[in-house]
Amino acid sequence: MVIKALAPNGGTGEFSYSKNSYFQKQNLSVVESKIEEEIQKKLDVNKLASASNMIIRIADLGCATGPNTFMNAQNVIEGIKHKYQSQCPNTETEPEFHVFFNDLPSNDFNTLFTSLPQDRSYFAAGVPGSFYNRLFPQSCIHFAYSTLALHFLSKSPEVVQERNSPAWNKGRIHHTGASKEVVDAYATQFGEDVGKFLDARAMELVPGGMLVIVMSSVPNGMPYSEVASGMLFDCMGSILIDLSKEGLFDESEIDSFNLPCYASSPEEMRKVVERNGKFSIERMELTNPMPLLKNIQTLIPDWITHVRVVMDPIFSRHFGNQVTHQMFQRLTKHLLDKVQVLETKYRDKTQLFVVLQRKE
Amino acid sequence: MVIKALAPNGGTGEFSYSKNSYFQKQNLSVVESKIEEEIQKKLDVNKLASASNMIIRIADLGCATGPNTFMNAQNVIEGIKHKYQSQCPNTETEPEFHVFFNDLPSNDFNTLFTSLPQDRSYFAAGVPGSFYNRLFPQSCIHFAYSTLALHFLSKSPEVVQERNSPAWNKGRIHHTGASKEVVDAYATQFGEDVGKFLDARAMELVPGGMLVIVMSSVPNGMPYSEVASGMLFDCMGSILIDLSKEGLFDESEIDSFNLPCYASSPEEMRKVVERNGKFSIERMELTNPMPLLKNIQTLIPDWITHVRVVMDPIFSRHFGNQVTHQMFQRLTKHLLDKVQVLETKYRDKTQLFVVLQRKE
Repeated sequence: MVIKALAPNGGTGEFSYSKNSYFQKQNLSVVESKIEEEIQKKLDVNKLASASNMIIRIADLGCATGPNTFMNAQNVIEGIKHKYQSQCPNTETEPEFHVFFNDLPSNDFNTLFTSLPQDRSYFAAGVPGSFYNRLFPQSCIHFAYSTLALHFLSKSPEVVQERNSPAWNKGRIHHTGASKEVVDAYATQFGEDVGKFLDARAMELVPGGMLVIVMSSVPNGMPYSEVASGMLFDCMGSILIDLSKEGLFDESEIDSFNLPCYASSPEEMRKVVERNGKFSIERMELTNPMPLLKNIQTLIPDWITHVRVVMDPIFSRHFGNQVTHQMFQRLTKHLLDKVQVLETKYRDKTQLFVVLQRKE
Repeated sequence: MVIKALAPNGGTGEFSYSKNSYFQKQNLSVVESKIEEEIQKKLDVNKLASASNMIIRIADLGCATGPNTFMNAQNVIEGIKHKYQSQCPNTETEPEFHVFFNDLPSNDFNTLFTSLPQDRSYFAAGVPGSFYNRLFPQSCIHFAYSTLALHFLSKSPEVVQERNSPAWNKGRIHHTGASKEVVDAYATQFGEDVGKFLDARAMELVPGGMLVIVMSSVPNGMPYSEVASGMLFDCMGSILIDLSKEGLFDESEIDSFNLPCYASSPEEMRKVVERNGKFSIERMELTNPMPLLKNIQTLIPDWITHVRVVMDPIFSRHFGNQVTHQMFQRLTKHLLDKVQVLETKYRDKTQLFVVLQRKE
């Protein structure tokens, strides 16, 4: 079975994304000022606005249900306004902003729409669809960003589910700690997906338009098993094997499940962008998503909840709600038991920040 | 209490709009070819597309949850494509279409988005908000239509709920059969609302852009009590009075409730459009929404279901689910008992079709 990417948990309940996304908020605050810097240095707002009847169109690709997406939109708009004022200090007109919030059709847009800020300074629209396909007409978007979404593949690679393939990923749910063939299959899928993503955005962005990507990453050359998230996926796999041994489901269910997640290194990302050829790389760097958080032990329960709101739908569709619930219940204790190993894992520069500009 | 307009029932269940909107579908098929005619005669597609980077933007204002909105979009797009081909028979490029589906934030956009046609030839976006306010940036929409939505006022007029006002509408839930003061208060509210609607659209539509309105109506000078829908509202009121006498709620609850619905005559609509001054009236006529349906008796149960999916949220918010359910349950029998009176009521030309064009 091919597992397709799924939207995070909807609604506003205990395990909803909208109530459990403050870790993501912190991840994003790390790059906020960098985005402003890039707008100030590289985005010719006056030129873009003049060519489009003074309307600036912004897209959030993989917006989930809020509230982080609203803060991102507000920050980008403030950056663009600021740049416009510095370019045209004596003008009385200001651009109008049209913000497009995109996520998969299964995303809870109802929650997103009813929580839109009342006092927003932009016109809002929701766009259902996969960002690996076209979402907008040609050359109409001026600024697009995708935060904490592009590490979700469009699907898990097919060969890792094929019993006769050398890349068969038996007994695991992810490439972490797996054979080179499995890792390569994931890397290939990532390359294809991001290639499609860039092809679509190249059509949609105006020349000179900006594309910002924030996503999970690993330093060049580091195996994923050395990273804290790699250990997390490994633990999920072990718990699922325990549950299957307890008779809740057949172990073959694990062989046919592979998490569609891939944390690219900067080097890999650079290659994909260069192969696409439609964008200049204005900035690419690794950042520390959680610079203020030192004591991992106290964080584990919250960390698991934050992972759960995003990944629950992916596990539930394959294993059902009950197994998924049990897996997440055991995960906290499992990681607390292994906290000394977890503390040795790498968790500093695990977030990639990329700023691209559509070539003229 | 001011009753604000509410979106129709969501989901896909027994009393959902998406499963009970084929009457509305028939209402719309009556005007389909007229819309095509007007596009062919009046819309300069070549000029509009050339001025907007070959992107044509279309808005459905009050789209509900589908499927009618998808058919409307498809028809309008086909009409526009046809006109473009007749204007530019030798060109190889075609405009791209961006369709904006608008309704109140309480509308079930999740159902709308997951039922979007897979093979659509346009980019889709949802726009949450009241069409009595601005929804889009300036001068970016080329074709907007509002079908079976503009007879819902932004709220019921406040004076009809004021005990000391000569327009107090005691013991009724609508202006049908009420005093001149009550009817006038509804007419004033309609004039204000449609004035706001036209102001907002005048900002959003490009010069030469087209605005089509399809809504409930009455012939000039006909009191609403002579129309079948007037009798329907009257019966709803009587049943609610019965239910209050049976002790389910206090009769004052009826005094504080007034349906925010108004069926304008063509004459009134013409005056509002002329007062606004931003649009030329290209076509305005009454149509028969149900030309093929003759035997009203057999239609009553379906009619009530179709009314219910749209009005259920308005009654439920005020009277609660239980009273609303009982009212609709009794309504069918009530109307069947009075079918001979109902048959004398006017139901021929009760749909207004208006085509406006944004002045240059």
